[in-house]
Amino acid sequence: MITGKNYIGNRISAKGTITYKTFNPELHQENSTLFTEASSTEIEEAVNLASSAFKEYSKISGEKKAAFLNEIASQILLLDTLLIDTYCSETGLPEGRAIGERGRTVGQLKAFANLVKEGSWVEATIDTADSNRKPLPKPDLRKFNFPLGPVVVFGASNFPLAYSTAGGDTAAALAAGCPVIVKSHPMHAGTGELVASAIQKAAKIIGMPNGVFSNLNSKGIEVGQQLVTNPGVKAVGFTGSIKAGRALYNLAATREEPIPVFAEMGSINPVVLLPEALRKNAKSIANTYASSITLGTGQFCTNPGLILGVKSEGLQTFINSLSDDILKINPSVMLHPNIKEGYLKNKENVTSQKGVVVQADLTEVLKTNYAPQSVVSVKGVDFLKNTTLHLEVFGPFSMVVECETISELETIILQLEGQLTGTIIAADEELEQYFTIVNALQTRVGRIIFNGVPTGVEVCESMVHGGPYPASTDSRFTAVGIGSIKRWVRPFSFQDWPNSMLPKALQNNNPLGILRTINGKKTTDQIIS
Amino acid sequence: MITGKNYIGNRISAKGTITYKTFNPELHQENSTLFTEASSTEIEEAVNLASSAFKEYSKISGEKKAAFLNEIASQILLLDTLLIDTYCSETGLPEGRAIGERGRTVGQLKAFANLVKEGSWVEATIDTADSNRKPLPKPDLRKFNFPLGPVVVFGASNFPLAYSTAGGDTAAALAAGCPVIVKSHPMHAGTGELVASAIQKAAKIIGMPNGVFSNLNSKGIEVGQQLVTNPGVKAVGFTGSIKAGRALYNLAATREEPIPVFAEMGSINPVVLLPEALRKNAKSIANTYASSITLGTGQFCTNPGLILGVKSEGLQTFINSLSDDILKINPSVMLHPNIKEGYLKNKENVTSQKGVVVQADLTEVLKTNYAPQSVVSVKGVDFLKNTTLHLEVFGPFSMVVECETISELETIILQLEGQLTGTIIAADEELEQYFTIVNALQTRVGRIIFNGVPTGVEVCESMVHGGPYPASTDSRFTAVGIGSIKRWVRPFSFQDWPNSMLPKALQNNNPLGILRTINGKKTTDQIIS
Repeated sequence: MITGKNYIGNRISAKGTITYKTFNPELHQENSTLFTEASSTEIEEAVNLASSAFKEYSKISGEKKAAFLNEIASQILLLDTLLIDTYCSETGLPEGRAIGERGRTVGQLKAFANLVKEGSWVEATIDTADSNRKPLPKPDLRKFNFPLGPVVVFGASNFPLAYSTAGGDTAAALAAGCPVIVKSHPMHAGTGELVASAIQKAAKIIGMPNGVFSNLNSKGIEVGQQLVTNPGVKAVGFTGSIKAGRALYNLAATREEPIPVFAEMGSINPVVLLPEALRKNAKSIANTYASSITLGTGQFCTNPGLILGVKSEGLQTFINSLSDDILKINPSVMLHPNIKEGYLKNKENVTSQKGVVVQADLTEVLKTNYAPQSVVSVKGVDFLKNTTLHLEVFGPFSMVVECETISELETIILQLEGQLTGTIIAADEELEQYFTIVNALQTRVGRIIFNGVPTGVEVCESMVHGGPYPASTDSRFTAVGIGSIKRWVRPFSFQDWPNSMLPKALQNNNPLGILRTINGKKTTDQIIS
Repeated sequence: MITGKNYIGNRISAKGTITYKTFNPELHQENSTLFTEASSTEIEEAVNLASSAFKEYSKISGEKKAAFLNEIASQILLLDTLLIDTYCSETGLPEGRAIGERGRTVGQLKAFANLVKEGSWVEATIDTADSNRKPLPKPDLRKFNFPLGPVVVFGASNFPLAYSTAGGDTAAALAAGCPVIVKSHPMHAGTGELVASAIQKAAKIIGMPNGVFSNLNSKGIEVGQQLVTNPGVKAVGFTGSIKAGRALYNLAATREEPIPVFAEMGSINPVVLLPEALRKNAKSIANTYASSITLGTGQFCTNPGLILGVKSEGLQTFINSLSDDILKINPSVMLHPNIKEGYLKNKENVTSQKGVVVQADLTEVLKTNYAPQSVVSVKGVDFLKNTTLHLEVFGPFSMVVECETISELETIILQLEGQLTGTIIAADEELEQYFTIVNALQTRVGRIIFNGVPTGVEVCESMVHGGPYPASTDSRFTAVGIGSIKRWVRPFSFQDWPNSMLPKALQNNNPLGILRTINGKKTTDQIIS
């Protein structure tokens, strides 16, 4: 049952006055539930509950946190078709995608559960005392990762499960020991409420402190602003547009106590087509990219929006094939009329710029909210001069830049804004031949791909989903994979602390059996005192 | 020979028009060398050289970086008495301190050299491919730590060697693969230039790219501002006042591309005296703290400026003994007349507040620039109401807060600003008895000390020197110890990259022999492909 209300801790509440409904873009009609935006009082209450829950939750065992995360995963699966149907009705995305994303979400929760159950993630580091050291005795110092405090997570429009209510940020923050307050995304408030109910059930079953999780509805930007400026909030996770992400970053940076904002924002994910690869495989590369550009109606942050090559017969073949192939792909619906409108507007903005040539643009009459895919091209010199062409067009769109020379291509890469990914399509020997291109690309991205596509973000420890600004506001952390737990912790050190009063991770006899660094050596050994 | 000029990369340069001299506070007279502040052109040049050096320096081997860092250490030692004499003449600090701090600086450089020579610090993480996985093949992903780019380090007034030109931040950034531009502290510009010359010699001997290091003189704040806002600069390290640190943080946060600023700023390092400890040992605790408060004329960021206890006979004995003992300590000179002036002004500001009682204040006539040590006391209720009393008084000063109850004491801790350290002085059973106090303190500090003093920052891997704002602008990183290398790197991931073109740390046969995480398991094994 979807109530349209907020979860203030474990209590359902709807004291606010602003209401809204979600929208089914496939049927082009509103869904039935009326959602109530969280009021100022409710927001304040959620933060206070989280602060109070933090006292207990920051100290509970990894085992108990793992049980909580695993139980959330189970409760999400128990929502069954209600969740999948709600997801589809609020996004227009097909059932297969919903089920796949649910699998990813459940997988992420379990991966973090395993991480904290095992326990070595706290990076316990111990330097033992030496009372005989001259000129001064050496103290005993023991360091581990300690959670930051209550975390606010903003739901993302394009991943109602994997990057929203119980998505990567929430799973990582809960694993770290931080209570979470979710600012639900208005486009999938029903999906969000269902997942929130699963989290609340899990919290009750495992016996978590009230306030470990809250879910706040919001129609506009005010709920988010109030959360980010609340002194009780200690960090923020966000996935969305540069404009919104930067606004939150600015808000957080101007607080009396600034806090970290991890905003994963725009990216056009440059793809470099090297000459020999183009000469050999222009058509098959084009075919692969037609699919990548249109995957999920182009609504992925790793969508390849920029393709760079040097003028040649191969590049011309690539452009022609890409244009042909992309028009053969069945168009699909976007998440929301607003997103479709944004797509058309941004595309129009780019295609109206000097030198931009439309190579392919689906002109057939489409169902409402369906997106016409497009490919445009532009000369390197025009792209260099005009940063409007660097803007992300969120949707099934890509721009091919025809460079005069390889050095012009390198200049373009060096002047690009930060990106989540960069891709090199090359014949074997070309990586070595064009190493300055590769090096240039490495300074602009978080992940570099060889002969593949940027779409498809593997959830694993070696993934980096992040990159130099504006791909993210903090390139030192990934948004995907168990490494993202580091966003929500700080190192904390005990000096000369009595052994029995230390957290288990730092006690002499290593009761958790974790891997620790003792006097510079990695070991699971006990310390014989 | 001290020239008074800047190092723009390896070139000595003095194109600016603003000049200044350093000051000998012991003799109360200017030193002879005339220093020239870096001009805008020189600053721009230094950043451009650093950006260009980064291309090569970000990729050189750990072995070569280690050789560079070790050579810097050797060259600093070769400066011998010239360095020690210059240090003393620019700070008033005794020779023993100069030699000790030089030892620490050299030790830090060598510790980072060992770290990067061994190589596992890059946290190589590999998930191998699985082409048979369903529904989609699993790609090969390999992640490691990659340097951020050119780093600006601000010299600190109170540590001319260990936190300045070749101090912790510089050593960590160079170890990470980042070129460094030092904004030299005007109070010890000569010491700075000498150390810079040692770095340049080392760079030449080991064959480092020009621009890997620059040293810029500055009299005012403009050089620092210009550096922090230069788009070529990718991160900033700073140690100093809250006002200056926050200003730099704000500048960096409002850049088009915001960059991390690691500012280690003010701290009053609360010390909690628990009742039983006071009952048993008030006099000896007081004696220990009289020394800690006056150590280095109180010019340490870990100086214990706030002592909290519950009203009792024990606390009264402590206050009386501390007052007696501190007056017996020989006064000493401060770093600069401006620092002495600031000390007197800040002390006056605090002692003039409502409820503050001066318990001890050295009144004898002192040599110029010597600091009169002081102890004041105030009631908990007054401290709670007045945040002026929370401000750091940089110098040999401490404030004892007499709380009515233990719960008032806990309230004070919970309302304290973030701190570098917190100390608990307790009888054995009291840690358990007063666990809410300990937990409260843990949320406010980066390091917690049992029955010791906060002064004395052990340089080791388990040290955390940092803490919640305003102790630092980013509590997720330490300023001291080899862990500080993480300030200057970001994770970077290669997808399906050809083995021979990967960095050595990520190649199948593990040519560096480092500890890596392969498919979730820590190992030094090779990958059999």
